[in-house]
Amino acid sequence: MTETLGFTLQCPVPDHGNERIELAHGSGGLLTHRLIEEVFRPAFAQSPEDFTHDGALIDVPGAQIAFTTDSYVVRPLVFPGGDIGSLAVNGTVNDLAMCGARPLWLSAGFVIEEGFPVEDLRRIVGSMRDAAQAAGVRLVTGDTKVVERGHGDGLYINTSGIGAVVALQPISPRQVQPDDVVIVSGDLGRHGMAVMAARENLGFEPPIVSDCAPVAAPVLRLLEEGVNLHCLRDLTRGGLATALIEIVESAGVGMELEASAIPVSAPVRGACEILGIDPLYVANEGRFAAIVPEGDAGHALSILGEFDGAATVIGSVRSGGTTGSVALKTMGGSYALDRIAGEQLPRIC
Amino acid sequence: MTETLGFTLQCPVPDHGNERIELAHGSGGLLTHRLIEEVFRPAFAQSPEDFTHDGALIDVPGAQIAFTTDSYVVRPLVFPGGDIGSLAVNGTVNDLAMCGARPLWLSAGFVIEEGFPVEDLRRIVGSMRDAAQAAGVRLVTGDTKVVERGHGDGLYINTSGIGAVVALQPISPRQVQPDDVVIVSGDLGRHGMAVMAARENLGFEPPIVSDCAPVAAPVLRLLEEGVNLHCLRDLTRGGLATALIEIVESAGVGMELEASAIPVSAPVRGACEILGIDPLYVANEGRFAAIVPEGDAGHALSILGEFDGAATVIGSVRSGGTTGSVALKTMGGSYALDRIAGEQLPRIC
Repeated sequence: MTETLGFTLQCPVPDHGNERIELAHGSGGLLTHRLIEEVFRPAFAQSPEDFTHDGALIDVPGAQIAFTTDSYVVRPLVFPGGDIGSLAVNGTVNDLAMCGARPLWLSAGFVIEEGFPVEDLRRIVGSMRDAAQAAGVRLVTGDTKVVERGHGDGLYINTSGIGAVVALQPISPRQVQPDDVVIVSGDLGRHGMAVMAARENLGFEPPIVSDCAPVAAPVLRLLEEGVNLHCLRDLTRGGLATALIEIVESAGVGMELEASAIPVSAPVRGACEILGIDPLYVANEGRFAAIVPEGDAGHALSILGEFDGAATVIGSVRSGGTTGSVALKTMGGSYALDRIAGEQLPRIC
Repeated sequence: MTETLGFTLQCPVPDHGNERIELAHGSGGLLTHRLIEEVFRPAFAQSPEDFTHDGALIDVPGAQIAFTTDSYVVRPLVFPGGDIGSLAVNGTVNDLAMCGARPLWLSAGFVIEEGFPVEDLRRIVGSMRDAAQAAGVRLVTGDTKVVERGHGDGLYINTSGIGAVVALQPISPRQVQPDDVVIVSGDLGRHGMAVMAARENLGFEPPIVSDCAPVAAPVLRLLEEGVNLHCLRDLTRGGLATALIEIVESAGVGMELEASAIPVSAPVRGACEILGIDPLYVANEGRFAAIVPEGDAGHALSILGEFDGAATVIGSVRSGGTTGSVALKTMGGSYALDRIAGEQLPRIC
């Protein structure tokens, strides 16, 4: 396909504050060209040679790379603590970090609905630029398509990412062992509830702010410091519960969590109660679970303590009991977490 | 983000012929899980270990890789000669080939509208599998999001691709020299007109079939045989004219084309006349332009002759004249090709 992050052009293009996306912005023709020069090049190009080719050419520093992709359809596009742009960068950066990789390069594919305000696109692209800078990655290739009014929903963004694997050991559910401990990197449920509040105009007091952030730095520090990371998982769509269920099913182990140890802030807990939502299933965008040998837990916590989030141990892997099951111990007893069958919070990412 | 190409599960899932995409298919929960196991794993997984992690881990054979992305929003989803699935694979494969790279790995990101028939999705995913096999690439990571009915358009697919650069010299508009010749790899305009015919129910006789195909094999052969490829460009959105305008603007050269030498089949020419469309601006999905030194043109043509498409020389690069301009010589005189300002054929890819 002809790329939209495509070509150099010298003439400056005037800034039209009220310009809206037209079908022709996706044509590959003049308006596409202007969109690139006006919106994308200022955000992402680092030299005039950038954007002169369809694909990015990358010198690979290591022998193994990680490659991941995600499409982002969050609604609304802007929410307390972020927008679809920062989300699209951090989400893919975090996917790479979960592979034990140093995130390096991102692609961005935009599907824009006719009529979308160019000013909003510019703001979101700026937010991507800032998030990429904060996470130490470069957005190196991109594409734009436009669909007719009524056939999209403002803006969808896909980001794919490449990282250099730095973990010396595989990080995978298959590495999980009995007696390993389960650490979460911080309090849970903020992203999902912040998006819900923005979508439904719920004025929680104090306002709930998304945790949307890159987690590559703490993960790379854990690896550098020699913490034996058996498994990592970002706690996005489906939340903590879904992530841990997936891990125990893949690993063929059981897991036991202390409900009282799982960090959920009072505002999130209150909002979840009002809406009848279980915070363990709510998406986070700057939180991860790390499963490590018992002997490494203290070291891991002390490293994570240097970063945002108040990391804490919430449970452990069991040798006995039901394999493929996550048991939640509460004051009233213990019950097994289930996969949710329906959609609790659609379009949260 | 939690990936949808994510996890192993052993239980077989029954095939529901009339199943439709629900919002919950994008939830990360049970239905997402079933969708992966039922639709994506059968198509793409090669071992049970596949899909056990968020990102693909890849051993990189060379020192430099190419990385590209494209979103596909073609309408209708199926057209003579292909569908959005084969298009999404071939389009990104071809982008990598244009970088002088051997296409190796693809990602796939699906944005699916609630209500979309799962059977159609299965067919399209099967078409992606077949196209990937034909092009010698592996689809190694993916993601699915679902948007509410009325907020999408059936299905959008993003593919990103990684290739290993095999070209020993840079392939770029900057390499283009005066007296270089311009070769096109085959007849033009078929993809765009095939999609238009399908969309508008135009019964052209004979039917026009899209040229949608991978072009990596001929490009790699040209490189292996030592043809000095100064510049390559696939002739997708915006067609031949837009591609060459972009090249001459980047290269700061002029170009002259012989209108009579540009291969357009009689059915495509006829259809374009009926619809008032210039075939030079119509998208192709299996055609490229190669700009090579005059002395390499014969060698290039003889290699391309072994592949589908009837490659031919259509013009050359000029040292004098207007830089940044493509002149089309016709029987009636010569005129400069312009970028199109509007959208001639929306949603062609």
